[in-house]
Amino acid sequence: MTATSVADICRSAKRAARELAQVDTARKDAALTAIAGALIARSAEILTANALDMESGREVGLGDALLDRLALDEARIEGIARGVQQIVALPDPVGEVIEGRRLPGGLDMRKVRVPLGVVAVVYEARPNVTIDATSLCLKSGNAIVLRGSSSASHSNATLVRIAAEAAVGAGLPEGCVGLVGGGGREELAELATQSETVDLIIPRGGEGLKTALGEVATTVPVIYAASGNCHVYVDASADLEQAQAIVLNAKTQRPGVCNAAETLLVHEAVAETFLPRIAAALSAAGVSVRADARTREIVGCASSSSSATSGVSSRNGASPALQEASEEDWASEYLALTLAVGVVESTEQAIEHIGRYGSGHSEAIVTRDTAAARAFQLGVDAACVYVNASTRFTDGGEFGMGAEIGNSTQKLHARGPIGLRELCTFKYLVEGDGHVRA
Amino acid sequence: MTATSVADICRSAKRAARELAQVDTARKDAALTAIAGALIARSAEILTANALDMESGREVGLGDALLDRLALDEARIEGIARGVQQIVALPDPVGEVIEGRRLPGGLDMRKVRVPLGVVAVVYEARPNVTIDATSLCLKSGNAIVLRGSSSASHSNATLVRIAAEAAVGAGLPEGCVGLVGGGGREELAELATQSETVDLIIPRGGEGLKTALGEVATTVPVIYAASGNCHVYVDASADLEQAQAIVLNAKTQRPGVCNAAETLLVHEAVAETFLPRIAAALSAAGVSVRADARTREIVGCASSSSSATSGVSSRNGASPALQEASEEDWASEYLALTLAVGVVESTEQAIEHIGRYGSGHSEAIVTRDTAAARAFQLGVDAACVYVNASTRFTDGGEFGMGAEIGNSTQKLHARGPIGLRELCTFKYLVEGDGHVRA
Repeated sequence: MTATSVADICRSAKRAARELAQVDTARKDAALTAIAGALIARSAEILTANALDMESGREVGLGDALLDRLALDEARIEGIARGVQQIVALPDPVGEVIEGRRLPGGLDMRKVRVPLGVVAVVYEARPNVTIDATSLCLKSGNAIVLRGSSSASHSNATLVRIAAEAAVGAGLPEGCVGLVGGGGREELAELATQSETVDLIIPRGGEGLKTALGEVATTVPVIYAASGNCHVYVDASADLEQAQAIVLNAKTQRPGVCNAAETLLVHEAVAETFLPRIAAALSAAGVSVRADARTREIVGCASSSSSATSGVSSRNGASPALQEASEEDWASEYLALTLAVGVVESTEQAIEHIGRYGSGHSEAIVTRDTAAARAFQLGVDAACVYVNASTRFTDGGEFGMGAEIGNSTQKLHARGPIGLRELCTFKYLVEGDGHVRA
Repeated sequence: MTATSVADICRSAKRAARELAQVDTARKDAALTAIAGALIARSAEILTANALDMESGREVGLGDALLDRLALDEARIEGIARGVQQIVALPDPVGEVIEGRRLPGGLDMRKVRVPLGVVAVVYEARPNVTIDATSLCLKSGNAIVLRGSSSASHSNATLVRIAAEAAVGAGLPEGCVGLVGGGGREELAELATQSETVDLIIPRGGEGLKTALGEVATTVPVIYAASGNCHVYVDASADLEQAQAIVLNAKTQRPGVCNAAETLLVHEAVAETFLPRIAAALSAAGVSVRADARTREIVGCASSSSSATSGVSSRNGASPALQEASEEDWASEYLALTLAVGVVESTEQAIEHIGRYGSGHSEAIVTRDTAAARAFQLGVDAACVYVNASTRFTDGGEFGMGAEIGNSTQKLHARGPIGLRELCTFKYLVEGDGHVRA
C-alpha cells in the first residue's frame, strides 16, 4: 500500500470514471477477460499474500468461520475468475434506452442509462468481493474504490494490483480500480464525505458497519446491501406439503444469508395439523425453534400424545423442547439454524406482524387462496413478495439480472438485488432543430 | 394549528399510507376532483387566510416579489384547482409492471411500481405548492407531510384543511395529508429523522434550505429539487440564427427558474462573428453580461469599430460595457437577467468547463456537427443534455410526465423532473407452485 490519501484515490477514480463512461462494451469485456486470466496466471502471488493474512488471522485468534471466509486456494481463485467471465457474458447496461418519445413540439427525447461515476464498496473479510465488485463496476462503466477489512489487507492489495494492471493493460483508464488501505473509522468518515468525487457508497456487511457508516455518511449517498428479517406465512388454505418444503428450504438451505427465513407464521386454522410436523422436520434438520405460547401449546400437546413429557418443566402444556419466543426474537436476523414460530388469526395479522418486524427484504405466503395471495402481495411492503416459493430466490442471478453486488432493502434507487443496471443512473438526451420554449 | 407533534403527524401519515397504497385509481381521482371542487367552493376561506399572511408579510417588510409569490386571488385559486384536475387526467403509476419474465425454474416474476409510503415536502413561500405536492403524492398513492414557511402559515393551514377534508370525504384514509406547523430548525431536524415513518423528504427551495436540511437529515433520504447552473455552448459549426434564439430563450424566457441558462460558451472559430451580435441582442433584452477576457476583447473591438471607446477605461481593448467575469461568476446561478460569457477552444474544453462548474441540471450544445453533438451528449454528466434546443425544456410537463414536484440533480432514484413515477418505488412479485431453491 502506498501513502496516497483517500481523497487522492477518489480523485483518480473520478478522472478515470469520466473516460470509462465512454468506453465501449468490447473494451470493457476485454478488460474483464484480462482480469480473469491474470487471476489464474498470478495465483501464486495471490496465495502468498493470502497466507500472510491467514497467519495474522490465526495469531489474533480469528474463529474458524472467519478464517474460512478469508481463505483462498487454487479452486477458489478459479471460482472468482469464472465469476468475472460470467459478468463478461452479461449485457452492458450503459447506453440502453429506457424510454423515449417525440415530444409534442417535435423534440426527440431519450432516457438513456449511464454509469453513476465512482462507486465505493466497503466490505468485510471475504476477498472474493474485491473482484466481484470490481467486475460489476467496470462492466457498468463505473470506477471503483474498495475498502476491505484489515484482516484481508494483503489479499485485497494483491487482488486489486492484479485487477488494476490487467484492466489498464487492456485499455481502461489509470485509477479505475482504487483501494483504500486498512485505516480506521477516520478513513471511513473521509471516504463517506468525498461528495465531489464519490457518487455512491455500498456497504456490504453487518449491522455494525451499517451503524458506523450511518454516523459518518453525511454527504455521499449510501445503499446498504442489507440484512434481512424474512418471514414465511403458511395460510389456512396452504398445501402443507409445499409449505413444509418451502419453510425448510427458506430456513436451512443456506442459513447464513440475508434471504433465509427467520420467522414462520402459521394460520390458526392449520396450526394443529402443520405445527407438529414442521416442528419435527425442523428439529430433524437441526433447527432450534423459538415459539409463541400457542405454538408451544400445540407442539407440546402433540409431543405429549406420542411421548410422555414432564408436567413440571412444561409450562402451559408446551413442550420443554421449544424455547419461548421473546419480543427480541421476532426482530432477530439469526443467520443461523434458529427460527421464530408464531400462530396468527388471519392473513391481515400476518401482514401486520411482517409490517412491524420485517426488514423489507423477502416475504413469502404459502396459500391456495387467490384472495389471500393478492392481499399479501399488496399489503406486504418489501422488496420481494413470494407466493408459494422460498424466500431464497431473492438474488440477482436467480432473477435473471446476472451477478449482484448485494441486496437493498431501501426504497430509493435500488430495491432488491443490486445488479449492473442498479449501478447506473440515466440522463435525458433531447434533440431539436433550434427549438425554444414558448 | 393543533399542538400535535411532528412524530404524531408522521405516524398518522404512515398509517394512512398503508391503506392508500391499496386504494384504486378511481377513488384517488375522485378525491382529487373533490379537492379541486372544494378549493373553488371554499375560496373565500382561503382568501381570508391569505389576507392574514399578506398583512403579516407587509408588517415584517417582505419585498414585493415575495409578497407576489405569497398572494392568492380567485384567478390563482382557479389555476391551482385546474392543476389538480390535470393530475387527475394523468395515468396512475401504481401497479404498472415495469418488467417481468418467467424465470428459468418456472417462477413468474414481475417488477411492479408501488408508492414510496410517506413523502415529506419542505417548501418556501408559494402556497400553491401545498396543493400541487398534495395532488401528486395522493395520485401516486403516497401520504404527504407538508412543511411550508411560517410566512404562509394561515394560507397553508387552510389549504391543507380543505384538501384533507375533501380527500377523506371522498374515501381516502384520515392522516393522508398532514401539515407540520411553522416551528424552527428543531422541527426540521425532527422531521428529517423520522426514519420509521417518513420514506423521503423533498425540499423545494434555495441553497439555504438545502444546507439546513443537509445538516440534519441523517436518517431519512432526501432528494433535492435543486438549483441549476445551466450552460449553452455554441459550437464552431452552429447555425448562428438558431444559436441566438436558443441563448435568448434559455436566458430570458423565465430567468428565475432552475432550467434557465447562466453561462454561454462560444467556440473561438465563431466567437468574432457570434459574440458581437449576441451581446447586442442580450443587451437589448436587458441582460447584463459578465465576460472573460477574449469576449471582452472581441465585443470591445466590435463596439469600437462602430463607436469610439475611451482607451483609458478599456483594459485589453475590451468594451467598458462588459463586466469582467470572476471565478465566482462561472459558478453562479444568477436566477436573474445576468449571463456569464466565455470563449472556448473546442467542444472538449466546453465539456470540461461544464464538468467543473455545472450543477448537472440541463446543458445545451448548438451545432450542425454530428461528432460534436455526440461528444457533448456522451461527455456532459447532467440530467438533461440538449442538442439544438433550449435548456428551458427540462420540465415534467414538457417531457410528457405530467406535472412535477421539482427537478433533481442527484443521480440516485430520480434525475431530472420528479413526477408521479419518481414518487414511487417498486417491488418484485414472484409466484411459484411450491418452488424451493436447489
